[in-house]
Formats: sequence, structure tokens, C-alpha cells
Amino acid sequence: MSVEEDQVSDGRLLSNINGPQDLKRLTAEELSVLAAEIRDFLVAKVSRTGGHLGPNLGVVELTLAMHRVFDSPRDRFLFDTGHQAYVHKILTGRQGGFDLLRQRGGLSGYPSQAESEHDLIENSHASTALSYADGMAKAYALRGEDRHVVAMVGDGALTGGMCWEALNNIAATDNRLVIIVNDNGRSYAPTIGGLSDHLAMLRLNPGYEKVLDLVKDSLGATPVVGKPVYEVLHAVKRGIKDAVAPQSMFEDLGLKYVGPIDGHDQSAVESALRRAKGFNGPVIVHAVTKKGFGYRPAEEDEADCLHSPGAFDAESGKLLASSSVKWTGVFADELVSVADERPDVVGITAAMAEPTGIAKLARKYPERVYDVGIAEQHAATSAAGLALAGLHPVVAVYATFLNRAFDQVLLDVAMHRLPVTFVLDRAGVTGPDGPSHYGVWDMSVFGVVPGLRIAAPRDAATLREELREAVAVDDGPTILRFPTGSVPADLPALRRVGGSDGVSGGVDILAEHGTASDDRKDVLIVAVGAFGHLGVEVAARAFEQGYSVTVVDPRWVRPVPIELVALAREHRLVVTIEDGVRNGGVGDAVAKALRDAEVDVPLRDVGVPNDWHPYGTRGQILADLGITAQDVARDVAAWASRVVPARTH
Amino acid sequence: MSVEEDQVSDGRLLSNINGPQDLKRLTAEELSVLAAEIRDFLVAKVSRTGGHLGPNLGVVELTLAMHRVFDSPRDRFLFDTGHQAYVHKILTGRQGGFDLLRQRGGLSGYPSQAESEHDLIENSHASTALSYADGMAKAYALRGEDRHVVAMVGDGALTGGMCWEALNNIAATDNRLVIIVNDNGRSYAPTIGGLSDHLAMLRLNPGYEKVLDLVKDSLGATPVVGKPVYEVLHAVKRGIKDAVAPQSMFEDLGLKYVGPIDGHDQSAVESALRRAKGFNGPVIVHAVTKKGFGYRPAEEDEADCLHSPGAFDAESGKLLASSSVKWTGVFADELVSVADERPDVVGITAAMAEPTGIAKLARKYPERVYDVGIAEQHAATSAAGLALAGLHPVVAVYATFLNRAFDQVLLDVAMHRLPVTFVLDRAGVTGPDGPSHYGVWDMSVFGVVPGLRIAAPRDAATLREELREAVAVDDGPTILRFPTGSVPADLPALRRVGGSDGVSGGVDILAEHGTASDDRKDVLIVAVGAFGHLGVEVAARAFEQGYSVTVVDPRWVRPVPIELVALAREHRLVVTIEDGVRNGGVGDAVAKALRDAEVDVPLRDVGVPNDWHPYGTRGQILADLGITAQDVARDVAAWASRVVPARTH
Repeated sequence: MSVEEDQVSDGRLLSNINGPQDLKRLTAEELSVLAAEIRDFLVAKVSRTGGHLGPNLGVVELTLAMHRVFDSPRDRFLFDTGHQAYVHKILTGRQGGFDLLRQRGGLSGYPSQAESEHDLIENSHASTALSYADGMAKAYALRGEDRHVVAMVGDGALTGGMCWEALNNIAATDNRLVIIVNDNGRSYAPTIGGLSDHLAMLRLNPGYEKVLDLVKDSLGATPVVGKPVYEVLHAVKRGIKDAVAPQSMFEDLGLKYVGPIDGHDQSAVESALRRAKGFNGPVIVHAVTKKGFGYRPAEEDEADCLHSPGAFDAESGKLLASSSVKWTGVFADELVSVADERPDVVGITAAMAEPTGIAKLARKYPERVYDVGIAEQHAATSAAGLALAGLHPVVAVYATFLNRAFDQVLLDVAMHRLPVTFVLDRAGVTGPDGPSHYGVWDMSVFGVVPGLRIAAPRDAATLREELREAVAVDDGPTILRFPTGSVPADLPALRRVGGSDGVSGGVDILAEHGTASDDRKDVLIVAVGAFGHLGVEVAARAFEQGYSVTVVDPRWVRPVPIELVALAREHRLVVTIEDGVRNGGVGDAVAKALRDAEVDVPLRDVGVPNDWHPYGTRGQILADLGITAQDVARDVAAWASRVVPARTH
Repeated sequence: MSVEEDQVSDGRLLSNINGPQDLKRLTAEELSVLAAEIRDFLVAKVSRTGGHLGPNLGVVELTLAMHRVFDSPRDRFLFDTGHQAYVHKILTGRQGGFDLLRQRGGLSGYPSQAESEHDLIENSHASTALSYADGMAKAYALRGEDRHVVAMVGDGALTGGMCWEALNNIAATDNRLVIIVNDNGRSYAPTIGGLSDHLAMLRLNPGYEKVLDLVKDSLGATPVVGKPVYEVLHAVKRGIKDAVAPQSMFEDLGLKYVGPIDGHDQSAVESALRRAKGFNGPVIVHAVTKKGFGYRPAEEDEADCLHSPGAFDAESGKLLASSSVKWTGVFADELVSVADERPDVVGITAAMAEPTGIAKLARKYPERVYDVGIAEQHAATSAAGLALAGLHPVVAVYATFLNRAFDQVLLDVAMHRLPVTFVLDRAGVTGPDGPSHYGVWDMSVFGVVPGLRIAAPRDAATLREELREAVAVDDGPTILRFPTGSVPADLPALRRVGGSDGVSGGVDILAEHGTASDDRKDVLIVAVGAFGHLGVEVAARAFEQGYSVTVVDPRWVRPVPIELVALAREHRLVVTIEDGVRNGGVGDAVAKALRDAEVDVPLRDVGVPNDWHPYGTRGQILADLGITAQDVARDVAAWASRVVPARTH
């Protein structure tokens, strides 16, 4: 174990912490030992299960201080984002759950109201806590309840516009709300932008409080003879404060500011929080921390691999990586190859250059990649601006995060018919990160956007092909979406029907079993994207049960390829299988296309039910939902048995 | 004409302005006359057509200066929001179009690329221009094009989080980008929040530039003997600047700041813009203006009725109001009545208290209404916070604007199963404000949100009833959506089927014609919300053509009432009619419910096609789309003729 603390950290103190009340009586020395024990615990557990490591190593002292100074759950703690709540979980009676962290039936990787009365915000999207906090503080004020609301927010999350909206509202109140800015100078990647520069200036200054004391001392000797003089003195004070610590950005908004403080100095943190608690209004406490603090491999982790690793070797911090090829990697390689040929192609990431693969483009063409911070709205609309000025932006984000920019994609991009390619990684069922990380809504939600085309590649070859088709579109936006994890073996088509003009139309026939008994075959399976393999397997099983089956990959699912209507006419039953929510998804869209053509062939759609789903592996979740070859084949046979005329088979 | 200028304003100067080049040679005196002529023109035209008046009266000098200092379309002008672009239209050769402003075939109320090469952003949603500007400036830098990007943004729009995301990105560049903050202290309502207070402080200070000069003079006499001393002097300078004009908020972000300047002083504005143009990087020019400037009824318009009036009397500014009862009014009255009984019910508006009717609640219970600024994301998530702390928030917004908060409604509200009622005014086809103001996406987009219930009242009585059902829901969010304009006459149901438990289930039978020829009747019409009357009329016509018809109002369209499945079984054809996009809408949802029950009754859905639609009146647009009783009845008869067995009728 490489935790760099001198204290003996055998975990004895930690094992006696069953709730916040057990923290209150600890001495400074004991707290220091406990902090080391917590870091040991985190490294030991997360190295086995995977999970968010770096962020939690950075907030040990902050979280200890929160629980010592405030009184949860009477006072309400909000973590933005929730992946920095592990220490909070450890301190609120959930140490035992970490062996099954983010696993089915185990501990959530985020706060969970079902787990604890100390938890509130359950989702994984950044920049929301201050808005929650504003609402809660307003409600307590209106109801006359005597509680503090304490929100911890990272400097990365502050780059999200919601934080600005919230700060602007919070500043207009005098509610008792403490905002702890956990400033480690990086979100996933190093935090970008003007705010980051401003915070960096704060961090680098050598203790403005001392300078201020000096000034106060000397000013104290000066006679104050009237308001103008007072104002000049005040101005001088503010001026010096500004020169060494220009925190006025927050104060200009009307927010009391405390800091910067060393976020790993337990007594400094507690003292700051006590001051903040005593203040009768909203306060920002600016704590400077080091991501991965106390665990050298995480501290020195420039590429941020230990932000949220899978299982790793605790001694070295080396990931126990699988050697399989990932969807992300295929995209990243092909994008560089496209960019080699097309100087107008540029990349955009929202603070996730490495996880989305856009980093590969940035390494080769640094001037052609823009990291906009955790700011999906700006990602979309600045892409619109880039396109208006003649470039072709490729915006790479996790599917779940593009929901943040629905209105921007709809109006700023699509209504202006601007060529922007959105690449949605982690689309479909994801798993360990829980319900808010699922990428299951994109095909429905963005399916209403006029002129937007959506492609769902089924393997590496079609990902490369469809990416090239997407960047060739010049009259509107496209979405390319693929799931998390390893890319399956290439699944070549038997033949392509239509599609001679590139994007519009063209579907791949993946399998054909049996022949039409009269004019029609029994079942047409429309297998979307990565479910191509599943569709082929389902078809084989259905054929074994006596049904003639065709499997088609629509390739581009929006708009619905016209070829599907003709194919449907040649079958007695259509079954769609998609890795997204059923409401408004591909099944609904194909059904509508058939209705519009008055082709009333019965259709059944397989997809993700419109509900919240737990954490677990992608495979576990799909099995839970009955989206396996065995289950779907059984359903297909049952449906077919009721619409196919009885015959000897 | 009550424009308050001494100059003769007979419009002679204006009639000779055919493009920006005609402005360059004008004298100061001529410019002043021209400004007056433009104001006369605006009042004369908008008083007849309706449109956005106040915002445009406020930006006459700013727009003149933009076109004199910069060179559009080489330099690119971005207006945020587009409704402040009338003066720009007047100056770019479109005076002749104002007689048909916002009317079908006439001039758009927003910039329009189809109208002019000087126009770029076409949509009506606030806070987007700076993101566009960042993208465009980055593209010109990468491509080596020598252009300025000039974005005009209101202080109200700055309360939107997108602006923060954009400023944070812009500040990290050295691109030539000029941001003109048009600060009139109000968006629709007075601008709220910490930013507003900060800007107000800037506005109120008596010319910090003069103070600064004084300081500079005195400091100039002081010998600078080394860096520390220099820094102290610099600090003093900053301090004084701060004391009288704490504009450091922008400067802390790394943005050059010029101002505040009097936005109605033509030469001051031009001088500021010239300075900004010469600066080699992003600059903020802060111009203080008066909304409605130069037209007394608009200047004195506390309730902001002349922000975007219908036709009005030019002399008095009095609206030529219709006396009909509006949907908004019915909601506003009922909300107050609910709030009288339920102290936990509070209201939220995003800077539109008057247009959404929430102002009525605010007048009676000022402490129970929160105006969050143009910040729909914060509106949703702070509502989640209010609900977490035990209140029941009612968030009243235009339907089109809730798209901004899709992710927040999905995760922050619905995933946490929080009781928040969203009231969507201007849902469905709107009209004069063009495609981005259409409220046609809500039933599709929010239809994917698990646990979210959507009600669409058909008249005043059901609006009142369904609002009460909505605020009675305590385990998740609801949406109540109704269109723009006058509420139709109450349409009582023949009877209610199901629904004894309040929200879940229960549909209203509105009409029944004919009897079943065998076991089934011919057509079931599912008429959503305000299309209840339409459905009844369609049914009467279809009956005249020999078909037996039932008309049902589902009341709550999400989740789909189970009663519809049973009703569908009793008919040969189901036709849905909804005031929203067809993709993923109620038609798709009902079709899916039928498929899931293996009820393969043919269904046809009538709704808004998935495309962009022009401006015009609601009635014109609906007629264009074929959503009239005559058209739909013809379609229903045609569909029915192909699925109903031939018989003598």
C-alpha cells in the first residue's frame, strides 16, 4: 500500500466510525490517522471493484470537516457530482458496502436516498447541486426551518452554465447556504477557460490574508475623518486584496467569499467552515485540493486514468487493462484519419478528451480540438458557430450528456441546417454508473429534430463507414451512436439494399433463413446498431422453430430508411430490437413509417422499458430486461405463432 | 406620434438608407435625426402589426453604431435574442417588409438568412449568441480570415447559463470578438439576481473613468522605485476602480471591459466600439440603455406590455386588446385559488411572470414566487430542491423553453420522483414568432421521462380540473400543457370512463355517433387537449359520410390511459389528433400501447409534421398543415373506407 502517511493506518479508527457522531470527539491527531485510513480503504476497495478514485482521495479532509462542523441529515449535504461522495458514504455507516461498489445489489457509485438518510442527489451529471441548494434553502426559509444547506462543487462543475444560473439566484438571497468549491484545477481533464485562470491566480497567491492583516494594521493607525476618506481606505484595501487575490468575481455577485484555504489542512478547513456556518447568508468556501491526494499513482496521473478506473494494481496504480478493441478506440483512430484528409474537420469535447477518444485528434492537431469545459450547451452552439464559419465540427460526448443540449441541437444547429457531427459514446445500456449514466434516450429525444440523421453502427467496419458518411453530410446535423465497451467482431452484410446515394436510404441484409411459404416470409427483424449480432442469433433460433426470417440493419435509423417499408410488406411480422428506450424509439418510428404507407403489418418492438434501471454490468442489465438471444427468440416465436397462418413446420 | 425628439422626423433620411454603406457618410446631426425617424417608423409599423417594440426602441443608437464602425456582412453580427434585430433589418434594406411583419409571407420577427446576408441566428431563445460567436471567431482564427464577430446580448440573456459557458471559453482565447452588453436592467421583467445587482452598481456610478484619470494624474507624480511599489500602486488603482465601478467580474475572467457607456449617446457608443475593434482580443462593451427609449408609453411601461405587444394605439400606447378569456388567465386564476388552500404550493418563472400568468400569484403571495431569470435549467432543478424540502413548486414556462431543461426534468426531478408541476403555456402550434417558438415537442420529448405524467386540458373547466389533479400528485413530476390564445367554450363530456382514482386513468367520451354494425364501431377518434372541439366536428362529418364514430379525450396522455386500449378493441380504426409533432407523440404512444396488448387495430395519427414551419397565425398554420375539421374528416373517411368492410351506408 503506497499511501504516503507516516501514521500507522491499520484501519482501527475507521472501523469504529459508524456515523457522523463518531467523528465529533476525535483529536487532531486522530483525524489525521483517520484520513490516512480512509485513503487506504479507498485504494484497497476501488483497486478491486473499479470506481471513482482520484476525486475521493482529494476530498477526505473536506468531507470529514463537513460532518464535524455541520449536522447531517438535519443539515443537508449536496455533492456535485455524486462521484465524490465515497468518503461521505464511508463516514455514514456504509463501509461494508464497498466490496460490491457499483455492482448489482451492492453500493451505488453515487449518493442514494435508498441507502441513507444522509444522501440526496442521486444523479451523475455535473453542475446541478447549487440549483438544488438554492431551492432547498428557499424552502427552509419559507417554512421557517433552521437548517444549513451545504453544497460541495468542483471547479470543473463550475464551468457548467447551471452553476452560473444558480449563483446568480443564490446571491440575490440571504439564505444560509454554504458552497464549498473543491478546486483541484481539473475536472476530468485540466479545467479550462477564464474561470480556471482566475481560480489559478487565487491558488498561486502566497496567502493574501497575511497581506490583508498588514494593511489592516497600518490602516488602523490612520485617522478616519469622514466618509470619503473611509471610502478611499476601503478602496485601497480592496485594491490590495484584488492584487493578491482577485476573488471579487464572486463578491461582485454579492457572495461572501472565504479562502483560498488548503483543502488538506484539516483544521484550516474546519475553521473556514465554522466561519461560513456563522455567517447569515450564502458563503463560498474556496478549498484548494489535489486530486488523488495521498496516493502517488493518482497524484501523478497526468492522463487522469485514475479518475474512474476499472480494477487496478493497488501498489503501482497500473490498470488491469483488457486488450480488447473498444468502440471509442475505433472512432478515435478513424477520426484522425478523416482529419488527415479534411482540414475543415475539427473536434469538440466537454472536458472528456480522453474518455471520448478526441484526445487522439488533439495530440495530432492540437489547434483543431476545443475543450469547452463541462458545458454541453456551449459545445453544441459553438459547434454551430464553427459550422456557420465553414468548418465541420465533430462533437464527441457520452450519450447521456447530450441531453443537456437538446434545445441547442434542435434550434441552434438543426434549424440552421448546420453540418455538425455528434458522436455519442456510451449510448444504450451502460451499467455500473447507474440510471443517470444510461445512454438510452438519444434515439427518441433527438428523433424529433427535423433534418437530423442518426446512425447506429453495428461493428468497427460500419463505425468507420458511417463516421465518414456523417462528416460528408453538409446540410444538417448527424448523430453517430455506439455503446460502451469492446467492439464485437465485424458482421459483414449479405448485401446492401438501396443506399447508392450514401446517407439517405440503404439497409444491410444480415441474414436470411427459409423461404416465403406463399407471397410473404414470416418475420423481419430490424436489428439496430450493436444489436446486429443479437438479431442474427435470434433469427437462427426462430428459424430452428420453423419460421422464415430476414434480419436487416437499417444503418441510419433517422429518418427511417424507405427500404424498410418495402421489406415489411414482404413479411407477416416486424420485430425491432434497439438499445434505447422504447418510447419514441426506432420501433415507434418504423411503426409510423408503416402506418403512413398504410402497411398494417403487425410490429413488435424490443427495447429498454421506460423506467429507471439499477447499476450492474451491461450484460446483467440486458439479461434483466430480457434482451438476450434466448429471451427475444422466445418472444419472437410467441408473437409469430399468433400472426403466421398455421402450417406444417 | 409621440416620439420625443425635437428634430423634424419626416422619414426623409430613413427612406434613403438602403444598406449599411449609406450610414457611413452621415453627420452627427443627421444621425440624430435618423434615430428619431427610425423610432417613428418602429412605432408606426409595430402599432399596426404587433411585434417586439420596447427592445428595438432601446437599441437604435447601438445598431447604428455597429453598422458604422464594423463592416457587415464581412464582419458578422449576432443578435441575442433576435427580437432586438428590427433596427438592423431597417438598416439593411428591409423597410418595405415591415407592413407584413411576422405575417405569413412577410418579414420574420427574427433574423433570417433567407431574408438577408446580414442575418445569422434565426431562433428566439436567449443566451445563445456568445456561443455562436465563440465558434465563429475560433473558425476565422483557424482559417486565417480577417473578420470581426460582434455579438449584442441583453443583460437579461446574461442570466442564462449558456452565456457563462461561452464567456468562460471566450476569455481563454485571444480572438477578435466584440460583445455588446445591452443593459436596460430588465429582460421581460426587471432582471434579477446577483449579476443584475452588479450591473446596477456599474450603472449608478458617476463616471468612474473621471475618477480614474484623477488617480492616474496623482500617481503619475509618484516615483516608481521597484516592482513591489508598482504593484501597490496598481493595487490602489484597481482598488479605486473597484470602489466606484467593480467591473472586475468580467476582468477576472480575462475579458477586456469598456464601459459603462450611455447607449443612447451615438458618439460615445461609436467611440467605444472603435476602441473595442482596435483591441486584439475579446472585449465587452457595456452600454446602458432604456427599454422603449424615445417613446414615452414604452419607457413608462412598468408591466412591460410593450415588450412584444399586439396591435396598439400609437398615440397612447394602449393595446387594442381583445376581451376574450385566455388560457393563461384561466390558469393564473386557478393557481391563486389552489395556493389559497395549499400553503406548500409555490410558483417559479423564468423571467416571464406576466406572460405566463404567474404574476397573479406573485401579487397575492410575493414571498411564494421565485423569478430565476432566463434560466430554465435552474428553474427545473431549484424546483427539485424546493420539492425535496417539502414544497410543491409550479413552474410556468412557454412550452418551447422547457426544452432547455430536458435533462434537469429527466434526472433532477423525475429520477428523484419529486412532485413538481410544469405548466406549459403556448404549447402546440403558436405562429407569429416563427419555428423556434413552436411548442410542439413537449409531448414527445418529455414522453420518455419515466414517471412523468402529462395532461392536456381541452377547455377552461378541464384546465382547472387537471391543474388540481397535477398538484395532487406527490410521487413525481407532471406537465400541464395548453395552447396560446383564447380558450374555447367549455366542452362537457358525455361521460367519464375510469379515472375513479384521480390521475391514473380516466378518459372523457365527448361524442358518439351511430351504432356498431356487428361487434365493433368504425372509428375511435382520440382528440388531444384543445383539439377536443376539432375531434367532435370531425366525428360529426365522418358520421354524415356513414361511419359510426366515438370521440374520446384521454385527458392525461402520458402514461397512455389503459381505457384507450379497451376502447380501441371496440373499433375498426383509431385516429389520434394532437397539437404536437407526430414523432414520438401521443399517436405513437397509443399505437405502442395497442401493440403491447397485441391489439392490432389500424391506427392513423394526425399531428404536426416533423419539419420547420413558418410564421403566421395559428389558424393559418393549422390550415397549411391540413389540421382542420374539413381536412381531417376527409382523411378519416378515406382511411375508414379502406379498413371498414363494405356495407350499405
